[in-house]
Amino acid sequence: MADEMRRIALAARPQGAPRPTDFRLETAPVPEPAEGEFLARTLWLSLDPYMRGRMDDVASYAPPVPLGGTMEGECVAEVVASRHPGFAVGEIVAGRFGWTSHAVSGGAGVRRVDPALGPVSTALGVLGMPGHTAWVGLNEIGEGRNGETIVVSAATGAVGSLACQLARIKGMRVIGVAGGAEKCAYAVEKLGCDACLDHRGADAATLSARIAEAAPQGVDVYFENVGAATLAAVLPLMNVHGRIAVCGMIGWYSGRGAADPMPLPPVWRLILTRRLRAQGFIIFDHEASRPIFLQEVAPMLREGRIRWRESVAEGLEAAPEAFISMLEGGNFGKQLVRVAAPSA
Amino acid sequence: MADEMRRIALAARPQGAPRPTDFRLETAPVPEPAEGEFLARTLWLSLDPYMRGRMDDVASYAPPVPLGGTMEGECVAEVVASRHPGFAVGEIVAGRFGWTSHAVSGGAGVRRVDPALGPVSTALGVLGMPGHTAWVGLNEIGEGRNGETIVVSAATGAVGSLACQLARIKGMRVIGVAGGAEKCAYAVEKLGCDACLDHRGADAATLSARIAEAAPQGVDVYFENVGAATLAAVLPLMNVHGRIAVCGMIGWYSGRGAADPMPLPPVWRLILTRRLRAQGFIIFDHEASRPIFLQEVAPMLREGRIRWRESVAEGLEAAPEAFISMLEGGNFGKQLVRVAAPSA
Repeated sequence: MADEMRRIALAARPQGAPRPTDFRLETAPVPEPAEGEFLARTLWLSLDPYMRGRMDDVASYAPPVPLGGTMEGECVAEVVASRHPGFAVGEIVAGRFGWTSHAVSGGAGVRRVDPALGPVSTALGVLGMPGHTAWVGLNEIGEGRNGETIVVSAATGAVGSLACQLARIKGMRVIGVAGGAEKCAYAVEKLGCDACLDHRGADAATLSARIAEAAPQGVDVYFENVGAATLAAVLPLMNVHGRIAVCGMIGWYSGRGAADPMPLPPVWRLILTRRLRAQGFIIFDHEASRPIFLQEVAPMLREGRIRWRESVAEGLEAAPEAFISMLEGGNFGKQLVRVAAPSA
Repeated sequence: MADEMRRIALAARPQGAPRPTDFRLETAPVPEPAEGEFLARTLWLSLDPYMRGRMDDVASYAPPVPLGGTMEGECVAEVVASRHPGFAVGEIVAGRFGWTSHAVSGGAGVRRVDPALGPVSTALGVLGMPGHTAWVGLNEIGEGRNGETIVVSAATGAVGSLACQLARIKGMRVIGVAGGAEKCAYAVEKLGCDACLDHRGADAATLSARIAEAAPQGVDVYFENVGAATLAAVLPLMNVHGRIAVCGMIGWYSGRGAADPMPLPPVWRLILTRRLRAQGFIIFDHEASRPIFLQEVAPMLREGRIRWRESVAEGLEAAPEAFISMLEGGNFGKQLVRVAAPSA
């Protein structure tokens, strides 16, 4: 086992929802680092909804994964061999190594993980890209302010759960939307949402009426992670000068958007008459604010003011099934794959 | 004539495009100003696309005109009698007096017009609400910058024609979209657009290809006045971090939006993947910047660096037909009604 590198390759481009046969496990000898490189052994792999987009052969903000290429993704890994002056054996790092057990890296885009901040897996979740995404969406895109009302969709997901908590700490009224009674209860009891509505089995009009009841002053900020019926439910409730932080649209991934007849003209009309701002963002554009985010949120974590929750799949081979399930809302909290235990 | 007040009332709520029978001319004795009021005699009435929205019985950013009520609109008028200490007989003012030959006012929302800035009719056009709208949309909402490319729809309209010229003066590449060869020629030859595309007889894909040819660096700002096929043509050309200033959607007024099947999901996806910002605005929110706008643009007018063009209908009775024609693109430049000549 120690001599073998395992990776998950993209075997086929999915039509609609991905299937297990779209992925393929491949093995190879563990690579050796050259001068100026180090060898990383993956401990944790992060699974995130954006990866679905990379499986399609269409231009997006990043190129697609080539057929046969290793699925992209961020890992927390241990340096197990090094010929790089900046990375020592035993150090924990985070990098975009992909769905793989080992990777050789020259250090580009790799950051050191400080185990004092929290369990190292949090570098992929609440203290990593999803956490930073929540922080940017709430503060820089949504410009949430004390006393305002925010709706967060996918409220118990990796991004949504921190967005809810940071908004609550800011003094906002926080309305979550999530799938299922268990997640909704968690959002209210553990994340501190003022209310959380279950989108399952509710059409847009019903969901909208429930959100309206929970948001008597209307909605100032919508933290958009899902699109689809949840978007249709929130839009009519937006207040004048409201902001929509467009972070994801998991309800429209896997080609489902193409079948959704939701028309643009009434949305465009609302944007005009209510003077709304709808703004998309991708966390990779916001590297400059990551230190500020960490400085603000890491102490909250240590002090127990912020909760986080992980869904853990065991072993790299379990990644495809966990990913497929996550796209259907099967995860509860940040979806991770435990690829290996740390040495010693 | 001098003893009679004429006004145009809303006779019926239009179904789709307004018809002459939706309006009614009414007469009454000229009212007398009470203490603290003045009597204004309308010289010019402004006709603007937003008025179509006020004819429907639906909530918008302003309440609808009641059936039988005077159609809303802004006028340039002469003070002909005054019991108000702040307004003297002979002064020229601008106010929201409506489609009427006379109005009594207490002065709320009325501003003085300085005839030294330009012909007083410009207080309803290039130096008035449409001009200010162009300035805010370009600078504050679109954040157009030197070296960037902007597309302006309804490029020869009251708002669009100033947006084009201010963008050109700013050093932007300016692509107009307008209806018909004559307007397009005017946009290039007189407004200084680098190119102007005719949306008539072109579907969205064809129009998009033509705009793409004129915008080899893509589109950074879209000044949106029309929606519909023009929006569909511009969207795929938007650059990463592009801005859409949503100012109007005349192509979707009169209920035409309801029949347009243009779907939201691909637009939402573009907003996300290209990190676009789509923001609606209404000029009434931006009163604070009006002095800055005037200070910047009035000298350009005096120096002949800015052109403007007016479509003038003669007499208040002509207002309904001129309004109906404007909604179909029949005007060329700012649509005005000359209601009366100034005295002396």
